[in-house]
Amino acid sequence: MSTRTIRVQADLLATNKRAAAAIREELRGRGVLGVNLLSSPGSGKTTLLESLADRFRGRYRMAVIEGDIETERDAERIRRKGVPAWQITTGGACHLEAKMVGKVLGQVPADIDFLFVENVGNLVCPASYDLGEDVRCVLLSTPEGDDKPAKYPQAFLSADALVLTKTDLVPYVPFDPARAAAEALAIKPSLRVFAVSALRGEGLDELAAWFIEALERLRSGRA
Amino acid sequence: MSTRTIRVQADLLATNKRAAAAIREELRGRGVLGVNLLSSPGSGKTTLLESLADRFRGRYRMAVIEGDIETERDAERIRRKGVPAWQITTGGACHLEAKMVGKVLGQVPADIDFLFVENVGNLVCPASYDLGEDVRCVLLSTPEGDDKPAKYPQAFLSADALVLTKTDLVPYVPFDPARAAAEALAIKPSLRVFAVSALRGEGLDELAAWFIEALERLRSGRA
Repeated sequence: MSTRTIRVQADLLATNKRAAAAIREELRGRGVLGVNLLSSPGSGKTTLLESLADRFRGRYRMAVIEGDIETERDAERIRRKGVPAWQITTGGACHLEAKMVGKVLGQVPADIDFLFVENVGNLVCPASYDLGEDVRCVLLSTPEGDDKPAKYPQAFLSADALVLTKTDLVPYVPFDPARAAAEALAIKPSLRVFAVSALRGEGLDELAAWFIEALERLRSGRA
Repeated sequence: MSTRTIRVQADLLATNKRAAAAIREELRGRGVLGVNLLSSPGSGKTTLLESLADRFRGRYRMAVIEGDIETERDAERIRRKGVPAWQITTGGACHLEAKMVGKVLGQVPADIDFLFVENVGNLVCPASYDLGEDVRCVLLSTPEGDDKPAKYPQAFLSADALVLTKTDLVPYVPFDPARAAAEALAIKPSLRVFAVSALRGEGLDELAAWFIEALERLRSGRA
């Protein structure tokens, strides 16, 4: 990479960091937990959000910002769950940036508990962009293979939690959940690891409880 | 995106295009078919190459250049099949560029038939970078979902063939191969579509035959 390329990248990241800090301050002021979901395409981010919508219904209020290169599909899926959702289409860009989230933030109701941001499906580029979230989750679906953390370390290093998804497929794919977790923990020892099957409703209570704890910590000023 | 960002991106792509043209000329001169494999992480690119190694053994000679952010794992898997392989680790970069491939090309034996380049697992960024290949294949694995072509159009638009992988999982995942194919064909009507299960050895003969046809076309000057 040339010096010029590196400098432009550093400028972009510094600009992004400022926008992210403003979002974080805004969300904390509102008492809203911001969550950034990262993964490869098709790892189950939208399906996980649909499941959380079912679990939180009547108890906690959530909103979702969806990032995709094209289409409104994911926002439409979330809205069908009765959850307000905004679709950001990046038109080619491989990740969300904080300023894109900032533009939508004014439309998000003030009285929610959780703001989930589903990033563009990409296990590489989104890891470098802080979106002002308090919690970052990386998803790894069982069909992707248990060798992925070491191959894509930045996503795992930058996350607070690893969510192993599609555990119902374990009998049919070469995937060892213990190996995937160990490899991710070698990169980031403080990572919380969850294993879920949205299809079977398994593991979602634990994950939802962890989000609720993080929300309570934020509101008691211990974030 | 700022004007400056766009200009830097355009410069990078123009530089890449020149390097790719040199690789294409070199490979055609040698009578070698260059193939660039693109997909999300864990869609089965390496497994597909292992299967092709078994099919081509004793009939056609192949070599593989592996692209990953970190680790030599994929090249080691290919070498265990008796196929020469070189690992490019990008150290953070989200795609291969032609100059990275160019640096390895001198070490690749001149008497091969196929040079496969497995790109970094990423359905977005690699689509913009010509690596000097004659044939580009995009893989989509069934667990990723049949809604991906419209969400990540550039990868499908830039490809010559779509390979639907892991078809053995169709009974366990919400995936309609016909829908995935139709959506990809709406983006690129000339796309050749293959459906394979490397685990069961299904669909690989058709795909191998297509590569052999492309090689014969190249050598007869009809590329």
